[in-house]
Amino acid sequence: MITGFEFLLPTKIRYGLGMVKVLGEELRLLKAKNVMIITDKGLVKAGLVSKITELVQKEGLSYIIYDEIEANPKDYNVELAAETARKHSVDTVVAFGGGSPIDAAKAVVVLTKQGGKVRDYQGKGKIKEDCISLITIPTTAGTGSEVTFSSVITDTREKFKFTIKSPAIAAKVSIIDPELTLTVPPLVTAATGIDALTHAIEGYTANCTEPIAEALGLYAIEYIAQNIAEAVKNGANIEARDKMMMGSLLAGLSFSHSDVASVHCMAEALGSLYDAPHGMCNAILLPYVMEYNLPSAEFKYARVARAMGVDETEDSKAALEGIKYIKNLSKEIGLPGITSLNINREDFEHLAEMSVKNGSNASNPRKITKDDYFMLFNKAYNDNYQ
Amino acid sequence: MITGFEFLLPTKIRYGLGMVKVLGEELRLLKAKNVMIITDKGLVKAGLVSKITELVQKEGLSYIIYDEIEANPKDYNVELAAETARKHSVDTVVAFGGGSPIDAAKAVVVLTKQGGKVRDYQGKGKIKEDCISLITIPTTAGTGSEVTFSSVITDTREKFKFTIKSPAIAAKVSIIDPELTLTVPPLVTAATGIDALTHAIEGYTANCTEPIAEALGLYAIEYIAQNIAEAVKNGANIEARDKMMMGSLLAGLSFSHSDVASVHCMAEALGSLYDAPHGMCNAILLPYVMEYNLPSAEFKYARVARAMGVDETEDSKAALEGIKYIKNLSKEIGLPGITSLNINREDFEHLAEMSVKNGSNASNPRKITKDDYFMLFNKAYNDNYQ
Repeated sequence: MITGFEFLLPTKIRYGLGMVKVLGEELRLLKAKNVMIITDKGLVKAGLVSKITELVQKEGLSYIIYDEIEANPKDYNVELAAETARKHSVDTVVAFGGGSPIDAAKAVVVLTKQGGKVRDYQGKGKIKEDCISLITIPTTAGTGSEVTFSSVITDTREKFKFTIKSPAIAAKVSIIDPELTLTVPPLVTAATGIDALTHAIEGYTANCTEPIAEALGLYAIEYIAQNIAEAVKNGANIEARDKMMMGSLLAGLSFSHSDVASVHCMAEALGSLYDAPHGMCNAILLPYVMEYNLPSAEFKYARVARAMGVDETEDSKAALEGIKYIKNLSKEIGLPGITSLNINREDFEHLAEMSVKNGSNASNPRKITKDDYFMLFNKAYNDNYQ
Repeated sequence: MITGFEFLLPTKIRYGLGMVKVLGEELRLLKAKNVMIITDKGLVKAGLVSKITELVQKEGLSYIIYDEIEANPKDYNVELAAETARKHSVDTVVAFGGGSPIDAAKAVVVLTKQGGKVRDYQGKGKIKEDCISLITIPTTAGTGSEVTFSSVITDTREKFKFTIKSPAIAAKVSIIDPELTLTVPPLVTAATGIDALTHAIEGYTANCTEPIAEALGLYAIEYIAQNIAEAVKNGANIEARDKMMMGSLLAGLSFSHSDVASVHCMAEALGSLYDAPHGMCNAILLPYVMEYNLPSAEFKYARVARAMGVDETEDSKAALEGIKYIKNLSKEIGLPGITSLNINREDFEHLAEMSVKNGSNASNPRKITKDDYFMLFNKAYNDNYQ
């Protein structure tokens, strides 16, 4: 029987090549007056942010650029941005970038209106409806954050990533334009692409999933598997970029209505402790968690494998082939192993502890303990040395 | 390349067994005061409407029941209902039933606030934002209307079905409870089930579709194909009812973000002229339109076939097998042929004319003319006599 669920999509999606041009129209519809563009220094340097400022200027709107967002966005990033937004009476945030600026922006829209520290908003029912407006414009095909209603922030004192979640912090509009990803370098394309694949697989298999999220996750896997290698090798191939962006969007819609699971629990622990790139962490851990989950997820993993193109009718074999496929794919697209993150074996106990405490731990399709996480960190580590 | 598109879902979905109990909570959230329950006489007689009135009474709200909605809802049904709603200062409509009461209700929420005749609202941009609130509660697994933002109404003077469409007339909330379908009789279960299958197939294959709609349509086909025969034969099987309801929901989400196509063009012509049941018309015409579309939709029809369980790797063979599968399925679940609608061969010219004028004609995956429609009506008719 299908478990009861609620499905709500507070974000209007506008997808397509060159779609960024509709930003002005959407700002008008939201009656924006004072805009804050939240982004990072890399995008400013690359000259990409000027596309956005031009469109905002064309509308005759006042705006400020806030580009102090770091990777794995920190509590103080968000709190400073919100203070600046209040000072400038910002009513609309345009988040432009990968997962970090977008996640940060989702926390900024609540803090600007409702005050306090970002950690205050962790836990159910803490976020009230009253937020300033948010438009998200992703520049990587991976995060999915442009359409989710959660924001993952690092508590810098405790070195722990936590999530705030509410439909109230979701974007009013997401403008998704694959052309913006044409200049993403190969390694980032690879890591963010496998991040999207992880979202799709975890969204489809999480034990709190529902059929809408399953449909979207499963279809996302096809788009990503068929296009990731080409997008990495030939970044100028707009068709591959287009389909990777679509895969990432479908995956974002899937996991935001289901959940992520143990891959993210482990990746967020690594991200908290070493400030390691989130997509890379997911990419490294995905096949190990899948191997662990196999006894509980064979049927679904077989469908994942077939969606990736594995031609095998027997479920048990197909599921195993799928895991192999992901391992080979990671190698093919040049993703390094876990040791590239400069991690310390002595931290594995602590990392396992953090993983089991993660809010998505209960969503993993197979029951998983601290000892299991410890074993998985060790396995990924040892494999890397073989 | 993926064609640019917009995806918006104005409706919050609450799905699950026994979910109807949340009606009170949702009426509170909408700040409802004066409620109109739009339904039909059959549901009142069957005692099902009392479930709804009890829940409304529990909230201490004033309400009226409007049960004058006919099958293939008529312009005067909607206009009378809106007049009554205005008279009683209704602020919230609860649509309870199959596609007819729900489609009618979507027209009532605009007419009550914006006045005039329903035909005035045909065409882009005619409907303003300002509508009274709508909650939809489907009692059949087929219509999908609970989550779409269109309403198909019969112009009784011209004997022509037309569509009004806007996110403003979509339900604020749809409460989808498969238990409400347990008493639907076998022939209605069969016809509405194939209606849902038609939505899924046309939503997936319409030439204006996009990947989100494709994913949902394709997954819907699995749910429907695996459960329709059991739901028809053993209506008390709640698991089959649950999965049919989910299939219908997924299909509704698909075609409302894509479109329907020539099956609906022909079915709506039949519905207009003979007041024939919509689900039945779709069910009868589906395989003939698929045969016609085959040269333009082979790849997608092969995927449709595999989603229904056809085990054939070669696309051209799989697509043909899929059409055969649907023909056999229709027989298995007891659906009659086109002559059961008491139609007149002499009307085929006129029916073909109406079909080609339908707003969804351009969405058909293969170009189709009046002569083609004439040929298809004849083919369905002749087959029925063989």
